[in-house]
Amino acid sequence: MALARISFRNDYSEGAHPRLLEALAQAGREQSAGYGLDRHSLRASKLICERIGRDDADVHFLAGGTQVNLTAIAAFLRPHEAVLAARTGHVATHETGAIEATGHKVLEIDCPDGKLTPSLLVPVIEEHGDEHMVRPRLVYVSNSTELGTRYGFDELKALSIFCRTRGLYLYLDGARLGSALAASGNDLGLPDIAEMTDAFYIGGTKNGARLGEALVICNPALQGDFRYVIKQRGGMLAKGMVLGAQFEALFRDDLFLDLARHASVQALRVRDCITAAGFTMFSGSDTNQQFVALPDAMVAKLAGRFEFETWARVDSGSTIIRLVTSWATSDDAVDEFMEHFRRLADECAPPAAALAASRQNQGKQECC
Amino acid sequence: MALARISFRNDYSEGAHPRLLEALAQAGREQSAGYGLDRHSLRASKLICERIGRDDADVHFLAGGTQVNLTAIAAFLRPHEAVLAARTGHVATHETGAIEATGHKVLEIDCPDGKLTPSLLVPVIEEHGDEHMVRPRLVYVSNSTELGTRYGFDELKALSIFCRTRGLYLYLDGARLGSALAASGNDLGLPDIAEMTDAFYIGGTKNGARLGEALVICNPALQGDFRYVIKQRGGMLAKGMVLGAQFEALFRDDLFLDLARHASVQALRVRDCITAAGFTMFSGSDTNQQFVALPDAMVAKLAGRFEFETWARVDSGSTIIRLVTSWATSDDAVDEFMEHFRRLADECAPPAAALAASRQNQGKQECC
Amino acid sequence: MALARISFRNDYSEGAHPRLLEALAQAGREQSAGYGLDRHSLRASKLICERIGRDDADVHFLAGGTQVNLTAIAAFLRPHEAVLAARTGHVATHETGAIEATGHKVLEIDCPDGKLTPSLLVPVIEEHGDEHMVRPRLVYVSNSTELGTRYGFDELKALSIFCRTRGLYLYLDGARLGSALAASGNDLGLPDIAEMTDAFYIGGTKNGARLGEALVICNPALQGDFRYVIKQRGGMLAKGMVLGAQFEALFRDDLFLDLARHASVQALRVRDCITAAGFTMFSGSDTNQQFVALPDAMVAKLAGRFEFETWARVDSGSTIIRLVTSWATSDDAVDEFMEHFRRLADECAPPAAALAASRQNQGKQECC
Amino acid sequence: MALARISFRNDYSEGAHPRLLEALAQAGREQSAGYGLDRHSLRASKLICERIGRDDADVHFLAGGTQVNLTAIAAFLRPHEAVLAARTGHVATHETGAIEATGHKVLEIDCPDGKLTPSLLVPVIEEHGDEHMVRPRLVYVSNSTELGTRYGFDELKALSIFCRTRGLYLYLDGARLGSALAASGNDLGLPDIAEMTDAFYIGGTKNGARLGEALVICNPALQGDFRYVIKQRGGMLAKGMVLGAQFEALFRDDLFLDLARHASVQALRVRDCITAAGFTMFSGSDTNQQFVALPDAMVAKLAGRFEFETWARVDSGSTIIRLVTSWATSDDAVDEFMEHFRRLADECAPPAAALAASRQNQGKQECC
Repeated sequence: MALARISFRNDYSEGAHPRLLEALAQAGREQSAGYGLDRHSLRASKLICERIGRDDADVHFLAGGTQVNLTAIAAFLRPHEAVLAARTGHVATHETGAIEATGHKVLEIDCPDGKLTPSLLVPVIEEHGDEHMVRPRLVYVSNSTELGTRYGFDELKALSIFCRTRGLYLYLDGARLGSALAASGNDLGLPDIAEMTDAFYIGGTKNGARLGEALVICNPALQGDFRYVIKQRGGMLAKGMVLGAQFEALFRDDLFLDLARHASVQALRVRDCITAAGFTMFSGSDTNQQFVALPDAMVAKLAGRFEFETWARVDSGSTIIRLVTSWATSDDAVDEFMEHFRRLADECAPPAAALAASRQNQGKQECC
Repeated sequence: MALARISFRNDYSEGAHPRLLEALAQAGREQSAGYGLDRHSLRASKLICERIGRDDADVHFLAGGTQVNLTAIAAFLRPHEAVLAARTGHVATHETGAIEATGHKVLEIDCPDGKLTPSLLVPVIEEHGDEHMVRPRLVYVSNSTELGTRYGFDELKALSIFCRTRGLYLYLDGARLGSALAASGNDLGLPDIAEMTDAFYIGGTKNGARLGEALVICNPALQGDFRYVIKQRGGMLAKGMVLGAQFEALFRDDLFLDLARHASVQALRVRDCITAAGFTMFSGSDTNQQFVALPDAMVAKLAGRFEFETWARVDSGSTIIRLVTSWATSDDAVDEFMEHFRRLADECAPPAAALAASRQNQGKQECC
Repeated sequence: MALARISFRNDYSEGAHPRLLEALAQAGREQSAGYGLDRHSLRASKLICERIGRDDADVHFLAGGTQVNLTAIAAFLRPHEAVLAARTGHVATHETGAIEATGHKVLEIDCPDGKLTPSLLVPVIEEHGDEHMVRPRLVYVSNSTELGTRYGFDELKALSIFCRTRGLYLYLDGARLGSALAASGNDLGLPDIAEMTDAFYIGGTKNGARLGEALVICNPALQGDFRYVIKQRGGMLAKGMVLGAQFEALFRDDLFLDLARHASVQALRVRDCITAAGFTMFSGSDTNQQFVALPDAMVAKLAGRFEFETWARVDSGSTIIRLVTSWATSDDAVDEFMEHFRRLADECAPPAAALAASRQNQGKQECC
Repeated sequence: MALARISFRNDYSEGAHPRLLEALAQAGREQSAGYGLDRHSLRASKLICERIGRDDADVHFLAGGTQVNLTAIAAFLRPHEAVLAARTGHVATHETGAIEATGHKVLEIDCPDGKLTPSLLVPVIEEHGDEHMVRPRLVYVSNSTELGTRYGFDELKALSIFCRTRGLYLYLDGARLGSALAASGNDLGLPDIAEMTDAFYIGGTKNGARLGEALVICNPALQGDFRYVIKQRGGMLAKGMVLGAQFEALFRDDLFLDLARHASVQALRVRDCITAAGFTMFSGSDTNQQFVALPDAMVAKLAGRFEFETWARVDSGSTIIRLVTSWATSDDAVDEFMEHFRRLADECAPPAAALAASRQNQGKQECC
């Protein structure tokens, strides 16, 4: 039976962390005001504002990431204004045209590692010079990205300065923000992100919550009437406390980062095992998503015992797979993976072909 | 403190019924496939199909009612096609233009009790005769309605025949479907509704679930690619099993109807107490929403001990209030309400002015 | 053959006034810049600005009225903001949901004569008090209205003050603005309208032009990036000079008002003939649209010689017809109509039944 | 004064061909039915049906190309369905997000010459495999393309077969269809296009008309209620005869092709002069748009006497310019251009650098 395999498929297979379940159960025994105006949501909002060091930010809790993205973008932009995103960005390719369905074009930019930079943005902005083309207005970045990479302080700062100079909004999709912040080399804090962006969201679903994302609108000019747009787009839950209670538990202490750190540690164990066997990782990820090109035979054997996604086909008989860890990934699961992987790597020696495949696909990853 | 008062404010103040919490906790300990393809959602879907006696229906679970309505209507209609709804219908006035935001006009029809009939529809349809006006295409009904009234078998059958004759879709918003089916005089079954409508949804949020609604698409012509539209509109939860596990618990046995029956019994106790005191209820509701016009002084005193919504102002010093019961409304709460109400009614005797107000507003209820 | 009949069907059956044809022919012999940046459009824009006494207004020329309305409203409003309009307003019922297709709800208000007033707006605005309902934002009026009635100076001023006090935009659809301004009792000038509204348009199609409407955006806050929205909605003509050249000719001297005055004079001749025969006009129109309820037999006989629209059925064997005059309506055509009408009125004497019908339908005209 | 220069800027600078002006003047003297139901529009529709050999096609006349594209796509697609287009396609980059504003994503495909092929489409279609991504549904091609290239019979046939096999609609934007059909090497006829596509439009604006495009819907499954969508999107002109009368004149005899042939002959004269001077044209155009990379000094000198668009910057001191001819381009104008060009080419000899620039940019033209 498929689920008996150990899963590295994604970070949203498990229900929720026990402390969040407990918080939910407790909240469920009280009566609450509806539509996100309950005491748990208000407290969670306050806790997040304290964490980012801003008392003028607005925090809204929504059920899922696509919902957050489409609601925010619909609220922030005028009809002719467009989003700038990496081609690998979630809004660009994996939301079934949710942004376009609100009327806005997403201008997709090829970039080697899923990360935008001012120099990648400049030519697109310059190309769009008059009213016969959309007006680029909102820069969408993910942190960590869909390829597991992260923005450093200087990188995000450069983007932020660029955006403010050019009259662009900077919006950060934090579906996996925990994984970015918990990475060992990370030098970005939540207050930095709040300072550098106009809005961002903190992902709960992929970091221990049953469901829920916390949108933080830092730019006061974008805050007006936001609850109207949430309601209009179907994102206002009658029992909003379901979301609030979980974020209250995540941010009352360090649970949010603790859960992400656990995932990160397990991911690096996976990565180090793979590179020790002579393989080169596909993207420079140090977060909870790890990508590697493996010979097809090896992929098939791994799949007998583990679940994971195949990410892209490599021409020469290899496939890039994605291995994802989460707050729920156990030491034992990773131990077992490492043991299997080492054995298979030995059998498949030498991994030269796969290595070559890894390299020749560095330039193709933007098509994934 | 406000919440210390006993609440008849709405049917979504409580977390969830203990059996649903238990089902959620259990599901949360397993790994599940994502996006509604987990085993709980599949089983819940199968249970609902069995209950309605149809194996060709499609069942989808979404987080909230506005989300269901906007997704279904966006998926079913072409751009120039419009919705026909009672002016009191949820899509007409209480979804912040969610339907219009998908591009479709809602044609609002005045009706005395929140219920549509063929004879109310005919003039609107005949008025819309050419391409300079929208084409009426989908008839939206709520059961029970926003005024607590219900459709009987013959009434829904008549609408169904009318719609099929005229090439209209019939869509039933069942946010409070439990309360309609559990009413003592109800003669409609779920299989009847599945037979008579093109699509309908079964409300969980207002009948014991933490969140979740089950959309049933009965008409095969409307089923194609529906998951694409769910995703596009932000309604596809990564952890869809949160919804599926609850509906599995609601429909594994009679829990869904049992919860609704409890609410219904309490509502009738409230109603009977009020009418025994000489007041006339505002709408002919026998479900979990009860409306009555009371003198303002009485409203103020009731509000010291109970929470409820004021529904509409009556000119002559009276106000219509709404009292809502739920699966969680205790005998004690209703006992206390009844005791208070009788005492206040005696103090405020004679209620003649309020009675008159009740009557003169029978014709105004469509503006609520 | 149908067209041999004399037409009072509408004001857009003829091609264009000879002086506009001449202007077009001359412009067509030159090379012009594209997309509305040609010298004719620029001059026409300047002439209109002079006529309204504002050098900070933006003028844009579009092909038709629905195009203007949907483009302006899409550009002016945020997604959750709604339009307030008379139920008879063009955007409400006769544009196939064009406004809703841009995502905005139109809140329809019953009003006896097609004209909005502050007191008609207040209850709708007060009903819309929170984020579960749309936010009323733009008041749409037509002048002259779809029923031929007009706003006086004081009426529009009252609306304007009301809108500014309440944070609402006031938008005036001037498809038949000429007919309003040319009416004998009119006390509103173009500068008044520019002062009182946030935007309005001056209709060319129904006042002598081959096609074209001039949108004037008076409120600078609404002017930004408007050309982007025109292009996005398909309204930017490559050969924009076709529109500009006509408006240049209309506003170089008094041609615009002269054409409208001609229509008005003919309309009053028609009206006076009808009332002299003992009939009561249906709406208090003194513009180029005249409505009257006539016995069906009389309608049938008139239709043998004249073209016109039947507007609404009256129960008692009568029908309301609409008679429209234009710049092209000849003295002879009206003479012939008057002669026929008097004869028919004598045959059908006494007109008591029709008169009664006229009266009992004063309250129904909002359903037209 | 700018316009005294001879213009090769575009094919929509002139008013209209005299025979169309005459047709318009004549039609303008009659009374006509409104909204495209006039006798000229009906006759023009019939003439086009005869020309394509189909009596089951629907023909609609609209004012401009963006209007046609957005109306057709809005009418043909369900919300989650997407357009496939060359990155240079008009809908992709030059309509200010008009398609996205109707809710649909445009999937942009890099292609060397502005033309799509099955092998370019396959990877995009295969990448879009589930409900987390849009469903590719309509293939948009332009003929001639934005780079002046054309589809041959076999090329369009291959696309047509591919689309029908894969359940895709094939839609052809014929803003410059005349220029494609009039090219000397063309082997496609209007009946072929009607047979191979689901819908296409015949451009009038860029081929002698004052304004107007004729949309032909060949696939009966796409014809239903199309006039509703025209009206909703603002494209229905009250005086539709303005469009019909011009197309009647274009298709009563061979005027449509005659005008295009004239432009084509002049374009080839321009092209041959340029290549004779040793330059390589940028795209393989044999239609009325010619592209060539020239040294900047030469561009500046040409611009002193002629108007044209600069298309893209070439790094090495060269710029690609676009030269466009039309039905109105005179022999004298081209003579003068050729004389100037030869002289400048001699002065700037040798053109080696520009030649090299031409070549190294063959691969970049998709960014134009």
